Amino acid sequence: MTTTTRNETTIEADPDLPTIRITREFDAPAAKVFRAYTDPELYAKWIGPRSVTTEIQDWNASTGGNYRFTNSRNGEVLASFYGSFHEVRDGERLVQTFTYDGYPDGVSLETMTFEDLGDGRSRVVGLSVVDTMEARDAMIASGMETGVVEGYQKLDELLTDL
Amino acid sequence: MTTTTRNETTIEADPDLPTIRITREFDAPAAKVFRAYTDPELYAKWIGPRSVTTEIQDWNASTGGNYRFTNSRNGEVLASFYGSFHEVRDGERLVQTFTYDGYPDGVSLETMTFEDLGDGRSRVVGLSVVDTMEARDAMIASGMETGVVEGYQKLDELLTDL
Repeated sequence: MTTTTRNETTIEADPDLPTIRITREFDAPAAKVFRAYTDPELYAKWIGPRSVTTEIQDWNASTGGNYRFTNSRNGEVLASFYGSFHEVRDGERLVQTFTYDGYPDGVSLETMTFEDLGDGRSRVVGLSVVDTMEARDAMIASGMETGVVEGYQKLDELLTDL
Repeated sequence: MTTTTRNETTIEADPDLPTIRITREFDAPAAKVFRAYTDPELYAKWIGPRSVTTEIQDWNASTGGNYRFTNSRNGEVLASFYGSFHEVRDGERLVQTFTYDGYPDGVSLETMTFEDLGDGRSRVVGLSVVDTMEARDAMIASGMETGVVEGYQKLDELLTDL
């Protein structure tokens, strides 16, 4: 199956800025991927690692809206996450804040851009910024990679059914 | 009058990070300053330079809420600004996003912390982060200093009446 080899997830920590850039291509048009980021039922199906279940508590994916969701395993809530939708620019761009409630003073600002590549394919670039290099390095060290990579694999599967 | 000399506004652009730190002390307790940041009628009275009038369009100063306001001069709208309240931690901390709609792709994440200093005085530290050094330098070059300094002078005056 060529999908898993050509749709690699790239996670880059900038050497000079407190940012993380995540780049991923999909075998689906940008509008469809955007829908999977903004529809709560779809989002809950793909976000995060395979080992947890996501439940949406709050969700208003419009400019000025907000969200909150939990991750559970065997019925036990492991973590919850919340933030705001600073901007929802249909099919093109999402700007969100993000906090993991186990570290309530940590906030990242995340900008996702969605770009059609032709032939029904698209690219999503997610840029996260925090206010210190230490906070950025802690995000990398938290094991986020597994959640990102597995989440996007689940999203590949979901997109084939949409 | 000693107030204006001892309550100086400090604006610092970090040499290594895309951040701006604004520090200001007030002759009022943190709870009162916090109220002036979260009550829309009070906020409209002090935010920004003296040459403009602020009108609040949207305002929900709670975690997950959002805001939008305009600056006008002689009845003409010069600019509008919007963002989200990522977190409102009563009397202590505000985390907001901020966009000037003349530059719609520019977003800053702003964390204000409110600290009592005793004797009825307090300090507010505002830390803004964006995702490139160029965007940070553009914020400094935009003439923000006048608005910040004059706004805090208006806030001094407002706090004496609260």
